[in-house]
Amino acid sequence: MTSVKGFRDFYPEEKRTLNYIFDIWKSVAQKYGYQEIDIPILEPVEIYNKSGEEIPEQIYSFIDKGKRALALRPETTPSVARMVKQKSSLKKPIKWYSISQCYRYERVQKGRSREFFQFNLDYLGTKSMESDAEVITTLIKILTSLKLTENDFCIKISNRKLINDLFRNLKILCVKDIARLLDKRSRISDKELKTELVNLDLSSRQVKGVLDFLNFKELKQIKIESEGLDELKELFDILKRYKLTKFLKLDLSIMRGFDYYTGTVFEAFDKKGDLRSIAGGGRYDNLAGMPGVGYGFGDTVLNIFLEEKKLLPELNSETDIFIIPIKNLDKCIPIAEELRKSNIKVNLDLLKRSISKNLDYANKEKIPYVLIIGEDELKKNKVKLKNMFSGEEKLTSVKNVIKEIQNGT
Amino acid sequence: MTSVKGFRDFYPEEKRTLNYIFDIWKSVAQKYGYQEIDIPILEPVEIYNKSGEEIPEQIYSFIDKGKRALALRPETTPSVARMVKQKSSLKKPIKWYSISQCYRYERVQKGRSREFFQFNLDYLGTKSMESDAEVITTLIKILTSLKLTENDFCIKISNRKLINDLFRNLKILCVKDIARLLDKRSRISDKELKTELVNLDLSSRQVKGVLDFLNFKELKQIKIESEGLDELKELFDILKRYKLTKFLKLDLSIMRGFDYYTGTVFEAFDKKGDLRSIAGGGRYDNLAGMPGVGYGFGDTVLNIFLEEKKLLPELNSETDIFIIPIKNLDKCIPIAEELRKSNIKVNLDLLKRSISKNLDYANKEKIPYVLIIGEDELKKNKVKLKNMFSGEEKLTSVKNVIKEIQNGT
Repeated sequence: MTSVKGFRDFYPEEKRTLNYIFDIWKSVAQKYGYQEIDIPILEPVEIYNKSGEEIPEQIYSFIDKGKRALALRPETTPSVARMVKQKSSLKKPIKWYSISQCYRYERVQKGRSREFFQFNLDYLGTKSMESDAEVITTLIKILTSLKLTENDFCIKISNRKLINDLFRNLKILCVKDIARLLDKRSRISDKELKTELVNLDLSSRQVKGVLDFLNFKELKQIKIESEGLDELKELFDILKRYKLTKFLKLDLSIMRGFDYYTGTVFEAFDKKGDLRSIAGGGRYDNLAGMPGVGYGFGDTVLNIFLEEKKLLPELNSETDIFIIPIKNLDKCIPIAEELRKSNIKVNLDLLKRSISKNLDYANKEKIPYVLIIGEDELKKNKVKLKNMFSGEEKLTSVKNVIKEIQNGT
Repeated sequence: MTSVKGFRDFYPEEKRTLNYIFDIWKSVAQKYGYQEIDIPILEPVEIYNKSGEEIPEQIYSFIDKGKRALALRPETTPSVARMVKQKSSLKKPIKWYSISQCYRYERVQKGRSREFFQFNLDYLGTKSMESDAEVITTLIKILTSLKLTENDFCIKISNRKLINDLFRNLKILCVKDIARLLDKRSRISDKELKTELVNLDLSSRQVKGVLDFLNFKELKQIKIESEGLDELKELFDILKRYKLTKFLKLDLSIMRGFDYYTGTVFEAFDKKGDLRSIAGGGRYDNLAGMPGVGYGFGDTVLNIFLEEKKLLPELNSETDIFIIPIKNLDKCIPIAEELRKSNIKVNLDLLKRSISKNLDYANKEKIPYVLIIGEDELKKNKVKLKNMFSGEEKLTSVKNVIKEIQNGT
C-alpha cells in the first residue's frame, strides 16, 4: 500500500526542513504585526470563480453526502475574503497570515506535487500604497531570512490599472488573451511572442507597442497618464524608505492569472530564471467587501530553490539527549523525568539494548547528547555524558547535565 | 457566501486558543523524545478497513480524476502504519507525533464538527509494556500541562487480550456485538445493558459474568489466567514509577471501536462523565509490520472541557507593540524596522488615523504596548511608550523601549 500519487509523506527529517521554512514564514509575519488565522479545507466551489482559468480546472471538487459541490482549497485568498465579509465586527486594518496546505490536480513533476503548503499574508482595509509596500517588505524579509540575497532573487512588480491603460492607449481589446500569453512569457521567446500577438490580429503598431512596454525597465520610460503609474511610483518611493530598492524590478509582463487583482501585482523570481515564480500576489479591491493586498508563497518551488543554493540547513533531531540505562531502567525513569521538568527533550531507551546499538541509534537520529547511566557511577551520584558531535565524554552530575544542555541550546 | 457546514473558520482569537493547545501537545511530545511527522490528507480508502464500523461510514470519500477511490483522512494511525511499512531504513524505536486535521461526515452537534485537529503519538518497534507506559505518561502530562488535575480527568485502561480471555472463559462467541454494546456503555444504564445482553442470547450466568467483569475496579478481582492480565499488571507497575497511579482506573468496558487494537486500550475521560472521551488509543501489533502503541487526541472535546473548567487562558495579540505616527510615517518606518531587528513584533499604523482611533484599535486587538511618535519628542530623541494593561505612560528612548519589551516578554 503506497501513498496517493502527488501527495507527500513527511518523515521527521523532511518535517524538520518544512518547520524551518514555516518558522521563518511565521516569525516575519509576526514581526510586522500580522495575526495567524486558519481557513477551512473544504469550501463551496463557487468562491473560486474569480481565480482565473488555470485554478478552476485543477480543483479537487466533489459532491458531498449533502449534495453540495465542494472543493479542496486550491488557494487561500478567496477564503480570506469570505471570512472578512462574514464578520462585520472586525477592526481595520485586518492583518492576517496563514499556512494552509492547498490542493491542485495537476501533472506531477519537479516542483509540482498535488498538494503544497501555502503561506498567505494579507493587509485589508485601505487602498494606501503604504500597505502594498509593507506586504512586499514582508516577502523580501522572508527571502533574506532564508539567507537569499539580491543576487539570488528579485521582486518583479507591475500594476493592473497601468496595463489596462496601456492596452486602451494601443486600442487593444483582447486584453484577456494577451494577459494569458504574457503569463507564460518566461517560457516563450520574443519571436514566438511576436507571432502569437500577430495571430491575435494585432496590427504591427500594436505589436510594437506591446513589446515596447514589456521591455520597460524604468517608470520614466512610460509616457501615458495613468492612476496605475502613479501608484507604482508611490510604491517604489515607499519601498526606498525600507531600503529595499535593490530587490525590485519593474516588469510589465507580470500578469498573475487571477481575475480578482485590481492594482499592484508582483512575483518573486530566482534571478537565473529557471524556476516558476516563488511567490506572488497583488491588490484586490473588489473581492472582500473592502480593499486588500496580499500574496501566496508555496513551499515546493522554494524548496528546490533553497536546495540549489545549498541553503537548506542540516537539522538535528528535535531531541536534546538520549539516555542509555545499563540494566537499571527503573532508576533512569526518575532521572529522565527530572530533565524533562527542566524542559529538556529526552529520549530514554526502553528496549534494553546494548550500549553500542544505542549509540548507533542516537547517531543516526542526530541526537546531540547521550547520557549513559551505570550502577557504579550512579552510586557516586555520577552519570556519563557524551557529546555526539565532538565525541567528548565526561563523568558529571545530573544537575550539571541540565546546565550544560540548557546553555548549549 | 458562508463556510461549509461543520467546517470551522479560525479567526485570530480562535487560532491563538488552538495554538495554545498545539504548543502543549508539541512540547510534551518533544520532551519525551518524539519527532514530528506529517501525513497526507488524501489516502487510498482501503487503509481504513480496520478502523472499526463507525469511521468507514463517516469517511469523506470520492473518486479522483484518475478514477481512484480516495479518502480525506478520518484518523492518523493507518497513515502512520503505512509510512512505517513503506520505509525499511527506519531505525527502531520509531517515536513519532503529528497534528493533522481529520475529517468525518457526521451530524454536526456540540463537540462534533466535521473536521477536528488530531494530535497523534506513537511508539513503534517493541511489545514491551515500557512503551505503553511512556505513551500513556505523555497523555497524562499533556492534560496536566493544560492545568487539569486528577479531580478533573482519569485514564481508563483495559486490555483486548484479557477481554477476549474473559469472553472465552464465559463461552461467549458474539464478542463483536458485545464490544459494540460496551462502546456506548456510558450512554446506557446497567438495566438497559442487561436487557441488550439477554437479547444477544446470553444465558443468565453469562450476563452475570459480563456485568461482573465490567465492575472490576482492581486487577486482583480478576481470577483467570491471561497474558492480557499479566500485561495490565506490568503496565500499572511501571506507571507507578512515573508516579501516575492516581490518574489511572481499571475499566474493562473500554473497548475502542477499532479492529486493529491487540492489547492495551485506554481512554481519557472527564470525571463528571458528561463528555465523550477526550483521547484514546492502544496497542496495535499487526498493523504496521512491527508492534506499536499510540493514541489520538482531538481538539474539539478538549476545548469544551477546558472551557467548562475555565482553563482556556485569555491570550493577547501575537503583536508586542503598536506604533502610532503623528504625521510622520516616513520617520516611523526606520524605527519600526529597528525594533523588528531586535525580534520585537511591531504593528505600525499606515492608515494615518487619529491617536484615539488608534488606541481603540490597539485595545481591541489586545496589543500590550503602544508607541506614540510625535515630531517634538522625536527632536529630543524621545518617544512615548504606553503600557495598555497598566495605562502607564512614559517618555523614553527607542533603545529603552526595546529593553523593556524584551524583558517583559
